[in-house]
Amino acid sequence: MTSTENRESANARSTRQRSSALLTDKYELTMLEAALADGSAHRQCAFEVFTRRLPNERRYGVVAGTARVLAAVQDFVFTEEQLEDLDFLNEQTLEYLRTYRFTGQIDGYREGELYFPNSPILSVRGTFAECVILETVILSILNSDSAVASAAARMVTAAAGRSIIEMGSRRTHEYAAVTAARAAYLAGFDATSNLEAARRYGIPASGTAAHAWTLLHVDDNGMPDEKAAFQAQIDALGVGTVLLVDTFDIAQGVKNAVEVAGPELGGVRIDSGDLGVLTREVRAQLDELGATKTKIVVSSDLDEFTIAALRSEPVDTFGVGTSVVTGSDAPTAGLVYKLVEVEGHPVAKRARGKASQGGAKAAVRLCRATGTAVEELTYPFGGEEPASNGFTTRALTVPLIRDGELVDNLPTLQESRDYLAAQLVTLPWEGLALTRDEPALTVRHISQ
Amino acid sequence: MTSTENRESANARSTRQRSSALLTDKYELTMLEAALADGSAHRQCAFEVFTRRLPNERRYGVVAGTARVLAAVQDFVFTEEQLEDLDFLNEQTLEYLRTYRFTGQIDGYREGELYFPNSPILSVRGTFAECVILETVILSILNSDSAVASAAARMVTAAAGRSIIEMGSRRTHEYAAVTAARAAYLAGFDATSNLEAARRYGIPASGTAAHAWTLLHVDDNGMPDEKAAFQAQIDALGVGTVLLVDTFDIAQGVKNAVEVAGPELGGVRIDSGDLGVLTREVRAQLDELGATKTKIVVSSDLDEFTIAALRSEPVDTFGVGTSVVTGSDAPTAGLVYKLVEVEGHPVAKRARGKASQGGAKAAVRLCRATGTAVEELTYPFGGEEPASNGFTTRALTVPLIRDGELVDNLPTLQESRDYLAAQLVTLPWEGLALTRDEPALTVRHISQ
Repeated sequence: MTSTENRESANARSTRQRSSALLTDKYELTMLEAALADGSAHRQCAFEVFTRRLPNERRYGVVAGTARVLAAVQDFVFTEEQLEDLDFLNEQTLEYLRTYRFTGQIDGYREGELYFPNSPILSVRGTFAECVILETVILSILNSDSAVASAAARMVTAAAGRSIIEMGSRRTHEYAAVTAARAAYLAGFDATSNLEAARRYGIPASGTAAHAWTLLHVDDNGMPDEKAAFQAQIDALGVGTVLLVDTFDIAQGVKNAVEVAGPELGGVRIDSGDLGVLTREVRAQLDELGATKTKIVVSSDLDEFTIAALRSEPVDTFGVGTSVVTGSDAPTAGLVYKLVEVEGHPVAKRARGKASQGGAKAAVRLCRATGTAVEELTYPFGGEEPASNGFTTRALTVPLIRDGELVDNLPTLQESRDYLAAQLVTLPWEGLALTRDEPALTVRHISQ
Repeated sequence: MTSTENRESANARSTRQRSSALLTDKYELTMLEAALADGSAHRQCAFEVFTRRLPNERRYGVVAGTARVLAAVQDFVFTEEQLEDLDFLNEQTLEYLRTYRFTGQIDGYREGELYFPNSPILSVRGTFAECVILETVILSILNSDSAVASAAARMVTAAAGRSIIEMGSRRTHEYAAVTAARAAYLAGFDATSNLEAARRYGIPASGTAAHAWTLLHVDDNGMPDEKAAFQAQIDALGVGTVLLVDTFDIAQGVKNAVEVAGPELGGVRIDSGDLGVLTREVRAQLDELGATKTKIVVSSDLDEFTIAALRSEPVDTFGVGTSVVTGSDAPTAGLVYKLVEVEGHPVAKRARGKASQGGAKAAVRLCRATGTAVEELTYPFGGEEPASNGFTTRALTVPLIRDGELVDNLPTLQESRDYLAAQLVTLPWEGLALTRDEPALTVRHISQ
């Protein structure tokens, strides 16, 4: 390794989270202790991440968080300070953790790939000990990021090419806000309000102004002066800025905005009321005032359904907050991490309602010549790809970590974003519908 | 300051998050820039945190995250590296941020206090500039923590004194998991599965075993050996451990568990199936086998409603995952941060559906002699407490930050937990019901 590579690697590490090792449920470490004691810790195992169903009868899910999972696995290293706090463990277990590095194999779906019930999204292979303790951090990341991306992709579809901005940081945990911005961008959002996400992931940052800005501008008698607020914003940020026009009266707000800015005003934002009616009225008013190129930005508890309902209205940009960062009524993706293979033997829980297919699996998607996806097939990991029956096949399972090291040429966030956009058009057309129904594709297991 | 104090302060800081300053929406900094340019940045303002309604027609909310907000305000300091990335700001704004420290006043409800629509949960006073840029980080923390605590308190009530454990880390963002554990503990949960929460906040950590543990124990032919798994767990963790008995057949699992552990077995966990029927069957079976003190732990998508439905069943411990960390269908508390006063003048947005009461406010709660709460009154901040009409009054608004510094003797997490437990019993009895209805108390504004 050259010294340049060393420096780059150190830089990459310094921008990551600190040790991820305590983002872990206690039972993983007590199972580890029991497994070290009876020797089962060293059995070769495969764990698999999948979901049994899609939330709210959606048609598809979007894999998100893969790059963050890989970083967390690399950062899964216990510090001495952390080990001191794990006083419920014996010395054998602490010694194992002291030198712990994941040295196994991880394969899985690309970030931005579509998934369905029983898609084997991630396959983690190695000793029981090294795999079992990664459960929580892997699931936390994939469940939160995939929940956001899966909802966000539906919103992007509903927006039908109009600009769509994520602005939900204030409605979710302060660090979940950062990764939600990333997941929404992956899913096709154009920008985020969140500055840490902009810095960390290179996502375009965007923003307008709050009602507080207008309310701040009172005269000496405490009477509101909307024009003074607009004037100050334009003086500071230029005439291309977006003015928030619904603090007092929207028609008056639009009038004031164009009076102050002139017809070159960049945009107006409406954050309350019946947005369908209002956008038509505001568009007519702007056009009448000669501000024909001034854009209309709407926000106010939008989700994929209200966005779709506004599709025929003169909206230029959708600002989406709460619903995207909370997964639009599905704040977690329902992914699980299950042991599926021990020393080459498939294993599976048999309790009612939670049965799963044993054995490590890989997957392919079958497509027509037109590119439309038809079905997803899983088959034993390392086995032969199933017969394609005249369809074209695409391998869904790709290598991510080999012997504990990241594989080369993992995709960038931008590449994963482009990848998802290309995948969405492969769905059968009804698969993009917002209504509740069966998954757009079925996943069928082919034993060999 | 003595050197001991210096060291303690440094220790306190090192256990906190890094700079919180970029957990911020872009528009706050562009508003700051415009305000610095036109001089309005220095106007004395009051911002207030409140909600317009409770989610899902719940009866009350629980304030959570206050201590984390105060830490984030203390840590709201821009590093040179962060400032370099803010290349959309001019030099005047960057210079302001370079020396930024919040030097104003924060008052608010105690952590663990109950709240209702229009309760003034937090009041932030200072210049427009120093207050406006705190919006996102304050709301992110209060919205996520209060969402979890508000749901968790209902689950604790439903559990009616039975033990209740938070184990939802795998279903939410990896750092939201840590603070969700804190919020659930505040609300009366007994323990968490999350090790980072245990370390950071001193919350008891708890855990049993996963299905993977049982599945790991296959013989050389790949046939399951549940008894070997149970034996190894007991050898390592003692007979007081909790064995997961539903991997294959529950009745056989219970039989195997008692055969291996004897009647002193600590507990069995059931994670699937119809928990009402199953717990009765398992209790009868355990009793018949002489394991009369062996406890029954249930998990499997529990929420406050399913917990309540199990109240008459022989459950000893509830393990709650997804629903508590996602706020049980309300993943955000809907709190907003609004400018309510400028240079002593009350200000308020007038757009339809989002009107709010202007002016900085404090609040008191009126109670009967029995302690039962009757009503909440708000009044102008700094004004005289409203007449009590023969009720006892309790001040809800307490000082939190004075001139940028934390006030002395802020409550510990344990004290806030005890405080909430005491507050819940002051609600009118119907206020603890799980059904949808009006808020348990109304909040009325008294002008002066």
